[in-house]
Order: sequence, then C-alpha cells, then structure tokens
Amino acid sequence: MAHPPSVEGTKLLLMRNLKIVLAYDGSDFAGWQVQPDAATIQGTLASAIGRVTGEKVLPQGSGRTDAGVHALHQVATCALESPIPAENLLKALNDVLPTSIRVLEVNEASHEFHARKSARAKTYRYRIYRGAICPPFLARYVWHHPYPLDENAMQQAATLVMGEHDFTSFAAVDPERGTEEGAVSNVRRISASSWEREGEELTYTVRGSGFLHHMVRNLVGTFILVGKGTLQPRDITRILEARNRSAAGATVPAQGLYLVSVDY
Amino acid sequence: MAHPPSVEGTKLLLMRNLKIVLAYDGSDFAGWQVQPDAATIQGTLASAIGRVTGEKVLPQGSGRTDAGVHALHQVATCALESPIPAENLLKALNDVLPTSIRVLEVNEASHEFHARKSARAKTYRYRIYRGAICPPFLARYVWHHPYPLDENAMQQAATLVMGEHDFTSFAAVDPERGTEEGAVSNVRRISASSWEREGEELTYTVRGSGFLHHMVRNLVGTFILVGKGTLQPRDITRILEARNRSAAGATVPAQGLYLVSVDY
Repeated sequence: MAHPPSVEGTKLLLMRNLKIVLAYDGSDFAGWQVQPDAATIQGTLASAIGRVTGEKVLPQGSGRTDAGVHALHQVATCALESPIPAENLLKALNDVLPTSIRVLEVNEASHEFHARKSARAKTYRYRIYRGAICPPFLARYVWHHPYPLDENAMQQAATLVMGEHDFTSFAAVDPERGTEEGAVSNVRRISASSWEREGEELTYTVRGSGFLHHMVRNLVGTFILVGKGTLQPRDITRILEARNRSAAGATVPAQGLYLVSVDY
Repeated sequence: MAHPPSVEGTKLLLMRNLKIVLAYDGSDFAGWQVQPDAATIQGTLASAIGRVTGEKVLPQGSGRTDAGVHALHQVATCALESPIPAENLLKALNDVLPTSIRVLEVNEASHEFHARKSARAKTYRYRIYRGAICPPFLARYVWHHPYPLDENAMQQAATLVMGEHDFTSFAAVDPERGTEEGAVSNVRRISASSWEREGEELTYTVRGSGFLHHMVRNLVGTFILVGKGTLQPRDITRILEARNRSAAGATVPAQGLYLVSVDY
C-alpha cells in the first residue's frame, strides 16, 4: 500500500534553502556553535530568524569559529517556510541582531547547497600588531606582539605548508570535537600561505581546502617560533612529518583571527 | 614668627608635574570623570597610577568626555612623588591598564602646566557611517545613519558656527554640571568646522577654544536636521541667536565622537 506523502515530507519540498552571508565581531561571543548558557553566533542568528519568521531553525555554518574569532564573510544555510523576500529578511535580521553581527547577503540556494559540505576552500587571516603601543581601537581585533621577529624567516616557513599535508601536528588535541569538517583524515591542501607587512601590522593569510580545529592559530604560533629564531624555517617540514601536536608551537590568541571568505 | 615650611609644602615642591597623553575606546566606560560605582577613564587611570607608584592621585583631564565617547589624544596632568623615569612609568601603566586605554606619552611638565586650564584649543571629530550595512568592526566607533542627507547643505551650515558665538542653544541643560570649562560664559571661538566624506564615512571636524557639555553632539544633531531639509543652513544663525537649547536639534549618540587633540 502506497503511503501518501507525509506532512513533513511535503513541508520539506516547499521549504526554501537560504544562503546567508554574515560578518561578525567575535569578541563578545563564545564562538559560532550554539551552547545552552552562552551567547554564540549560531544561537543569536537562530533567535533572530525565529523572531522575524516565527520558525525554529538552526542555521548551519561553513564551519565553526572559536570564541573571540571574527568573520568578514561566514556562510550559513537555513531551510525556511516563510515566503518573506530575501531582501526583506536581510533588513529584518539586521534590525533584530546585535550590531556586532551583520547579515551581508541573503540568497535563495538550491536544495543541494550546504554551507559546510559544499565549501571548496576557505581563507583565514591572522592580524598581528607590531608597534610598541597597540591603539585601543585595534585591541579587540589584533594580537599585540611588539617583540623582535625575523619576518623573512616567517615567510619562508609559511611557504613550506603549501600543498597537501597531514596537519595533525597543527590540530588541537580535542577528541570530543573532532575535525572541523567532521572527517577522519587530517590531510588538507593549502593553496595560499603568506605573510604581509603593512605599517605596524603583520598579517598571515592562508587559503585551504579545509582547516582542522585551531590549525591557523597553531600555524601562526609555530611561525612565531621561527620569527624568534627558536626554530628554523626548514623545521616546518619536520613538524608536519611528526604528526604530533607537541612538535609545533603554541596556539596564538583568538582575537587576531578572521574567517575571510568561503569558496563554493 | 616665621613658620618653617610644612611637610606638605616641602612635598609639593619636590613633586613632579607629569603630562600624560592617553587614547581610549570609551565604549565600556561611564565617561572620563571618576564615579563611585562605575568604570571611568579617570578612575581607571588613577588606580593604575596607584598600582605602579603606590601614590593616591586623581589625574586632571583637559576636559570630561561623556560615557561612550572616545579619545585619540586626551591630556591629563598629575603630581607625583615617585622618581620613576617617565618612560618606565609609560610602560608600567600600559601593563596594568586595560587594553582599551593606552598611555601614548608621559612627559615632565612645569608646575604651572594644567591639562584643563592651560588648554588653548581642542579638536573633536564625529564619525557617521552612511552605508546600508554598518560593518560589525565599526559599530562601536561610528554612528550608523544610512538615511538621505544633503551633505552640501550640512557643510554650509557648519561654516556658520565659525568665529565667536554664544553656544547656549547647543549646550546641555544641565544645572548640576555646568560648562566643561567651569566658566559662566557660553561664548566660545570656533576656528574650524567642516564635514568631509571618505567612502561610506561622513566626518565632522570642529576645533574651538573650548566646548560646552554635549556641544559637538548637539551641533551634529542640528546639522543632521539641515541635511534632512528640516532646517535650512541659514537657520544655524537664528538658532545661535536664540540662546535656547530647544531651538537646536537632538544630541547624536556618543559612540561617534572623538577627542582628537588638545593644543597648548
């Protein structure tokens, strides 16, 4: 006996899949992922969508960002029944969201599109302020590190992570959480990795097929050891081959890190 | 009978008068002036000096800034006994102050120098973000006003406050507080007053011999009415002549305002 389509099945077919592009100042949030007793980006966005549409949804991000990490361009997907036009939804969400989270775009997406699973590459940036006194207006947005660094050595080191590598040495030892992509392999492909100096700011930009938990901050912490002369640039290759977190440098603070873009 | 110099008198003669230049993000402070149950810039600076030198002092600023107002260059004076070199004091204060307050300079000043009484002019800036979506990283540092404004009319209006005027119409009605300079007269001399557009930012810069409480924010609120067409530029002259707060526009939000410099 053929069953008629269930109410839920029909609903899903009628639902729109929305692609939401966000920017946020992560300073006052406990990261992306919803938590019961803390303000998170995902939870705040879900509440805002609930207030605007009356629908209880949990938008899925391209990946988690940790507490204090910022985003210039985070992507989330969300299934909605509401027929509210995308442009009106954008304005309404920005009206109810705190000013530290802004919706930059809302677009209709195909049902196959998924913010995390469809992502082909991501770009992150890490900002270091090198001057003796960090301007108070930058304090939330950079890591202040005014001590001597051999920036040329750091650039040499950065190029050595280009290509496909097992990044276990640079991944948080975090059995509960697993990798950002939920996969077992710690192999990732890095297509851009470089340092740039502009005025008192030293910025690391890295683009890759995906990133393990704390990977960018651990890479930067290791490049800092190269900058200090504790490590040589060529040690990066040895550290990659060690596949052991303790071979690499410390995790640098969250406030300098930005998710810059997600490519699909 | 001649009295020998008292212990206090001798102490004062031995004290140094220090000129301290500060920058601060005022977002999380209840303004400059010390208050019993709120974090203020003056109170936080006094505590920091106390921790570093063991001396209980209350640094005097060039003027008060209100809750949420920022400073790129605020000047304070402070008498100290401690022989700690100025450069060491600067470093030690920045070590104990929150990163939202930075000491930019510490210099020995003559005993006659007083941050407020010696000031000859001050410059303030007010930043307005005109784009539809205010970047989350600017939200604490600008007033977001994306609505239509006739910026040429605002510039015409701004020039009309140049020169010497009684600014009673632009001063907060605030009997307990009085004027920023503590004087009775509300006449001030304005030597620069103009709007500048750069990208999505519209900025008002004003330089004057002194400013009454809320004066810059009330000027901007009135120029906004000119920008909207509610007032004509020439109405500024009429408002000045009215010497009545209710003749002028509303006070714009604190977060767009910066003390930019103090001239001696």
